[in-house]
Amino acid sequence: MTETLSPELEAVVARAATAAPAYAAVAPEDRARAIVAVADALEANKADLVAIAMRETGLTEARLSGEVTRTAVQLRLFADTLVTGAHLDARIDEADGAFALGVRPDVRRVLRPLGPIINFSASNFPFAFSVAGGDSAAILAAGCPLIVKAHSGHPELSDATAAVVTAALAGAGMPDGTFQLVHGREAGVAILKDPRVKGGAFTGSIAVGRLLADIAAARPAPVPFFGELGSVNPVFVTEAAIAERGDDIASGFVTSVSGSAGQLCTKPGFVFVPSVEALEAPIAAAAQGIPEHRLLDPRIAKSFAERRDTILGTPGVRPLVEGGVRFDADGQGWATPTIVAVSLDDFRAGHERLVHEAFGPLSILVEVPAGTDLAALLPEFFEGNLTATLHLSEAEGAGSANAEAIAALVEAMSLQVGRVLFNGWSTGVAVTPAMQHGGPWPATSNDSSTSVGTAAIQRFVRPVAYQNVTQAFLPAALRDDNPLGVPQARTGAGESQEWGARWR
Amino acid sequence: MTETLSPELEAVVARAATAAPAYAAVAPEDRARAIVAVADALEANKADLVAIAMRETGLTEARLSGEVTRTAVQLRLFADTLVTGAHLDARIDEADGAFALGVRPDVRRVLRPLGPIINFSASNFPFAFSVAGGDSAAILAAGCPLIVKAHSGHPELSDATAAVVTAALAGAGMPDGTFQLVHGREAGVAILKDPRVKGGAFTGSIAVGRLLADIAAARPAPVPFFGELGSVNPVFVTEAAIAERGDDIASGFVTSVSGSAGQLCTKPGFVFVPSVEALEAPIAAAAQGIPEHRLLDPRIAKSFAERRDTILGTPGVRPLVEGGVRFDADGQGWATPTIVAVSLDDFRAGHERLVHEAFGPLSILVEVPAGTDLAALLPEFFEGNLTATLHLSEAEGAGSANAEAIAALVEAMSLQVGRVLFNGWSTGVAVTPAMQHGGPWPATSNDSSTSVGTAAIQRFVRPVAYQNVTQAFLPAALRDDNPLGVPQARTGAGESQEWGARWR
Repeated sequence: MTETLSPELEAVVARAATAAPAYAAVAPEDRARAIVAVADALEANKADLVAIAMRETGLTEARLSGEVTRTAVQLRLFADTLVTGAHLDARIDEADGAFALGVRPDVRRVLRPLGPIINFSASNFPFAFSVAGGDSAAILAAGCPLIVKAHSGHPELSDATAAVVTAALAGAGMPDGTFQLVHGREAGVAILKDPRVKGGAFTGSIAVGRLLADIAAARPAPVPFFGELGSVNPVFVTEAAIAERGDDIASGFVTSVSGSAGQLCTKPGFVFVPSVEALEAPIAAAAQGIPEHRLLDPRIAKSFAERRDTILGTPGVRPLVEGGVRFDADGQGWATPTIVAVSLDDFRAGHERLVHEAFGPLSILVEVPAGTDLAALLPEFFEGNLTATLHLSEAEGAGSANAEAIAALVEAMSLQVGRVLFNGWSTGVAVTPAMQHGGPWPATSNDSSTSVGTAAIQRFVRPVAYQNVTQAFLPAALRDDNPLGVPQARTGAGESQEWGARWR
Repeated sequence: MTETLSPELEAVVARAATAAPAYAAVAPEDRARAIVAVADALEANKADLVAIAMRETGLTEARLSGEVTRTAVQLRLFADTLVTGAHLDARIDEADGAFALGVRPDVRRVLRPLGPIINFSASNFPFAFSVAGGDSAAILAAGCPLIVKAHSGHPELSDATAAVVTAALAGAGMPDGTFQLVHGREAGVAILKDPRVKGGAFTGSIAVGRLLADIAAARPAPVPFFGELGSVNPVFVTEAAIAERGDDIASGFVTSVSGSAGQLCTKPGFVFVPSVEALEAPIAAAAQGIPEHRLLDPRIAKSFAERRDTILGTPGVRPLVEGGVRFDADGQGWATPTIVAVSLDDFRAGHERLVHEAFGPLSILVEVPAGTDLAALLPEFFEGNLTATLHLSEAEGAGSANAEAIAALVEAMSLQVGRVLFNGWSTGVAVTPAMQHGGPWPATSNDSSTSVGTAAIQRFVRPVAYQNVTQAFLPAALRDDNPLGVPQARTGAGESQEWGARWR
């Protein structure tokens, strides 16, 4: 099954494989310094990069400029994170002559970089989930050489960003081959199949993500593949929340649906409400002010226009905000938000047509009769999702009449999504240590992990134990003198005699 | 692709699915108490269980009795582990008005049980990797309902153990459906395919492990599958080590190869030595005393006899200890150890015939010429392995002439195995927090994890974040009052302004 690479790709993979031991051996502080240098270089080149990105993606200057900042901040966060060494999960079990199962040798365990990783970048975040985005930051922080497969939607920006990254890493003294960029899906697939490549990351559609996940799993030596795929992010709003702040909810909703022309994996695709009526006017008013926005590329625009037609043509679907998609002479699509309503019965009847993600500024309000078991709606209608949200009133909570129903809904959400929100909107994912961006299939191909937040680094390391190995030959994180100052979890001699005793 | 289950299996999966939320909600201390009750019940029934196991597996009373103790100890270790809550990786990021990317909401993240898991048990550890073995302990500790697929090699023992486990869990008040046992590979496969089942564990052959891993990956909604498969565990011995304690090395080697009739995934299958001559006599002397040992079942015996013939028939292979396999009237095979030697050149020439695991008491010494780059032998001859071992002398180390070669060998080992040992033998895996039992393919189907040691619990949880969720609706591990007393990693307001600043 191993295929021959073209000479050009062979050189890319060979360079990454050669860089692997050298880059893994770089001292954590130097690796952090190099990553911060990338962040600084991106910000120094912000104006040029944003100009290219605007042309290639149709996203606004404000959005793209903020995205460069976000990208730099997440690189710096990973730099700080890797130096703590907490992600190494260093464990030391001391030699123990009184061990419960005979003599225990000295055993020490640490997480080590996987080796070269390929990251398939996203269309909709040309900075934050692209060449130097979150996955790339996590891969570099973990100590793995990175090969980025550029997204076809912004090839020039990818090259320009890659030049900035390459120069910054070289300037910081990182080994040649630590970072490389390739173009073309076939190139990406060929690299993912190469035995020297030890894993993959991806942000994009369910169809492509599944294809790549299947390739990674079917290799003669399978490798982990972390795909962040599709999501419709259901929202629930209580009657009391609407009574309390219906206008705020309506305007927050419209902003969340229409920002970046709705081309966000965390866009709220479904909102379950007790009654559409009270929200109808404020939603229409909020939508009024939203200017036409170019969609990322003609293919995405065409596919959004088709999804929109399907949804509008489903029996029982009533537009609250009609919106539309206009195609210009270059074939680019320009969208204004479309917001529709449907009854729970019609949603149930039209489920197959309605439930799939519409990648663009469109959302569906579902009107649920009083007394509906909201917790039961999630497993009835949805697979795994990135997020689920509940809007409730100030008075609703621990002591209120519906406290038990709220708890049941939160539990149902927890079983099916990666992030549960109260009184907010799922777009605008905070880049922060506790963030979870991922969820059960098809939100991701592997829900053991996240692609935003510092835990993302743990996708690209694997454990190795050292038994009775002398100090000089141990990885630095496991030495008794702990030169890196990482957290070391120690189990002392004799402890095993007491295991379980407290619970008898 | 979803298939219809038989009524009997449908009832099993339905019970596990019903048990999932109830068992996940059991307080950690009560879950720990239940797991300790299982450990105590196994020890209370040791005599009866060991008698069945001896008959079904041919393993000795001493070995099986020790294995029950080991199984009980690992259950108790997991009970203690789950209560600490360290595996929950609880993170709390405080709301932050001065966040680097605009206002950050309160975000909290915790790891939650996956749901029902199927564990395919092993033939060669009828207790420690079977019904109530390590994977089962990790699954129950994580808070997941457990379905065990019994190994066909010890069906009666599996039923007897299951009765003990079921009674202990019921006695401790655990929900019905927390633990169930099924027989037959088809039943196991059907359960692994069911959408209500959220993951699998396995210990066995590469062929079967690959089959099951592929099934798990190909499901409409893929699930993680943790297979511990094959390994040949290469060992390297320096000239100085032989000079210093050749007799000890020879006898330790023979004990490690012949214990449990060599039917251990950590058996040293290859030993690279500078010269066979000095070890020949002590190996023969040590092997003399090893009594004939029954192999686990006729299929394993037949397959071992064939592998042995293939190895003995390979050009350049010279028996140091001939050993053999004798079949009795019941078709059971009885083995004495076979130890052979081959030159590096002949090993290279006969590589395809020699390199695969021989599951039984057989090992191959490879004589390497002086000046051979030992570190290069690992990638030349082997795929991923569970372990690699180096025997060196007291004087060899940080200051010695071959210090660099040792460091290079340790690094090569680290890239290809899950556990690196000095001056010991890879059999007899310590059940202890820092243990790593797993390694790159084909040692395991997923080398992000271990199947021995407390980190094994992390295979069966997944992260969920809570954003702006009020205290009353948070999981206990994320509450400010921390009722479970788990470690909570807190990121305070304002910290993000300094991210990366130290590395500039």
